[in-house]
Amino acid sequence: MKNVCLLGATGSIGQQVLEVMEQKPLEYKLISIAFGENVESAKKIIEKFNPTFVSAKSKEIANLLKAKYPEIEVGYGNEGIIKAATFEAENPLVINSLVGSVGLLPTVKAIEAGRKILLANKETLVMAGDIISSLAKKHDVSLIPIDSEHSAIFQILLGKNKEDVKRLILTASGGPFRKNKREDLKNVTVNDALNHPNWKMGAKITIDSATMMNKGFEVIEAKYLFDMDLDQIDVIIHPQSIVHSMVEFKDHSILAQLGVSDMRLPIQFALSYPHHETLSLVKPLVLEEVGTLEFEKLDDERFPLVKIAKEAVNKGGLYPAVLNASNEAAVNLFLNGKIAFSKIEEIILEELNQVPSIYNPNLDDILNTDIQIKEKINRKFNR
Amino acid sequence: MKNVCLLGATGSIGQQVLEVMEQKPLEYKLISIAFGENVESAKKIIEKFNPTFVSAKSKEIANLLKAKYPEIEVGYGNEGIIKAATFEAENPLVINSLVGSVGLLPTVKAIEAGRKILLANKETLVMAGDIISSLAKKHDVSLIPIDSEHSAIFQILLGKNKEDVKRLILTASGGPFRKNKREDLKNVTVNDALNHPNWKMGAKITIDSATMMNKGFEVIEAKYLFDMDLDQIDVIIHPQSIVHSMVEFKDHSILAQLGVSDMRLPIQFALSYPHHETLSLVKPLVLEEVGTLEFEKLDDERFPLVKIAKEAVNKGGLYPAVLNASNEAAVNLFLNGKIAFSKIEEIILEELNQVPSIYNPNLDDILNTDIQIKEKINRKFNR
Repeated sequence: MKNVCLLGATGSIGQQVLEVMEQKPLEYKLISIAFGENVESAKKIIEKFNPTFVSAKSKEIANLLKAKYPEIEVGYGNEGIIKAATFEAENPLVINSLVGSVGLLPTVKAIEAGRKILLANKETLVMAGDIISSLAKKHDVSLIPIDSEHSAIFQILLGKNKEDVKRLILTASGGPFRKNKREDLKNVTVNDALNHPNWKMGAKITIDSATMMNKGFEVIEAKYLFDMDLDQIDVIIHPQSIVHSMVEFKDHSILAQLGVSDMRLPIQFALSYPHHETLSLVKPLVLEEVGTLEFEKLDDERFPLVKIAKEAVNKGGLYPAVLNASNEAAVNLFLNGKIAFSKIEEIILEELNQVPSIYNPNLDDILNTDIQIKEKINRKFNR
Repeated sequence: MKNVCLLGATGSIGQQVLEVMEQKPLEYKLISIAFGENVESAKKIIEKFNPTFVSAKSKEIANLLKAKYPEIEVGYGNEGIIKAATFEAENPLVINSLVGSVGLLPTVKAIEAGRKILLANKETLVMAGDIISSLAKKHDVSLIPIDSEHSAIFQILLGKNKEDVKRLILTASGGPFRKNKREDLKNVTVNDALNHPNWKMGAKITIDSATMMNKGFEVIEAKYLFDMDLDQIDVIIHPQSIVHSMVEFKDHSILAQLGVSDMRLPIQFALSYPHHETLSLVKPLVLEEVGTLEFEKLDDERFPLVKIAKEAVNKGGLYPAVLNASNEAAVNLFLNGKIAFSKIEEIILEELNQVPSIYNPNLDDILNTDIQIKEKINRKFNR
């Protein structure tokens, strides 16, 4: 029996984690959760899974839950999330499916507590890849990816020799605007951008897919998860999202992982690895019915954010943190109708042109920069 | 340094094995070869690789070589092939790239001598899969596949848990007549049938690809190589021959191996596994340039031989040996202009309708049946 600490329990990934856990009630017990403001969803989770500790975004929500469920412990804010991430239990497992920079600190604390971590929060490695990598090494903690692309690579590489790898090839659907020209993007609506062709995901990541910032983040994550050089990581457009990613070996043999677009597959694999256990929730992939898989070169002029993400990592220092903070603020502004879609990229570029020169920033530098950049962008556009 | 015994040295696979070995003269030494009648090619091999022992098909050719190269040992016929397969050497490695039933006995003898075997000869496992499997287990010998399809599965499964496998999916290009109807096949010429869309291979296997008998054989081989049930092995049409085969795991995750159509890749992997070593002979696969991969259901009515091969294994006894012998004889007749292309299948079906009832045949039963069936078919059609 593994005791699961689930951060971001009411989000898209969190909900799917619970669906997978429900299939194996004898293997997994939900011990703690952290969530934001979705009280109704949190109540359902509490009543169904009976966690010992629950953390909400605000004190008000925490008090409300405490009144309704006097037997559970409650917490709130950053302190609550960290308590949820490091909640004392035998055989603990932390699943970080928080969205945004709020996911960074709980990862750090869970690593310091020596917890095994299943990571769906992208920002952890984007903002602080170097710090997280050395911390994980120091505490001998493995970071297991939940993302479909990284899960694909993780599945392929299990049992293989890392020194035989030539490069990783991340697939990208191209999102809803793959066939649009850049000048067509000015007037796209929030609904257009949320209409991903293959995946049902949370709002933030769906917008990141439409701008391809998401793929830039995944390149950064892949570098740290699999300890590769940036120039060993390529991106290819694959509109069908059936091939979730690939690994090319030194002899030009390529191994690829394929499956339907269903996050419950990588979620279960992160839980059950190195085993592929039966998963009746997920439909089999019938390639005879899919018929055609297409691949196209990634056009760096059409989708510059992948290249920009690589450059930010090469520049190092606070560049990756600024990349993430400016994107997070800009996507929020777009989702709230404050800026046009094409403005997201402009805001990111503007901030990357004025990154404070701190080399080897520590965690506080990164977290402070995150707050400052977001406040600055919000002051300017959030009227 | 590994000492290589190469059976079928002048054939298509044999030549490509030598190309790969040439890249690593410090790792591999050619110690013995067996070949058929291609004396010119054999001379080149002798002069370049300086093997200690050479076996030819006939005594005449062996004497001719002995006169020209007095320093080498020579042999001929079945005895010569077996000596080549079991030639005494430190760190020996047997590569069986013989074509046809002649490959069976040398495999048996090499297994009995405890040799590691790289197997390109399909007939070994088709004719005597049960016998070979138990013999290999008894002598703790591994059979490493060289075929692109089985190499794909072998690469995928390395480091994985066999009990997690749901099924193997062999890809088939469909050969040169994929788009033809059955009634169009009556008048196809030998040249039409030898014109494979993706692979340059020997004549026998190219015809087997056109009839899809080859894929039926590969299903049988896969059963024995990977210890799977027949109903765990499916075939899918994939005209581009880029995905060389796939494995579906219990969670519906599929791993696939991709690469250009170049046998030197599976050959090197069989030599270098578990490592994927640099292989400059083989071009990288650039999926952006390939663009499209297509998959279609295998039509058992259009290509009945895959199903017939499975049935032959299910019936057991001498059925697989008769399947192979009748096919081998029929393909030879077609290549020599004695029968029409569509007659190959008819001859196979006719022989499978009158298989002698011997259960658990031994090696002699199988080898005698092979000779009898071939003689019978030749008497009838070879005029």
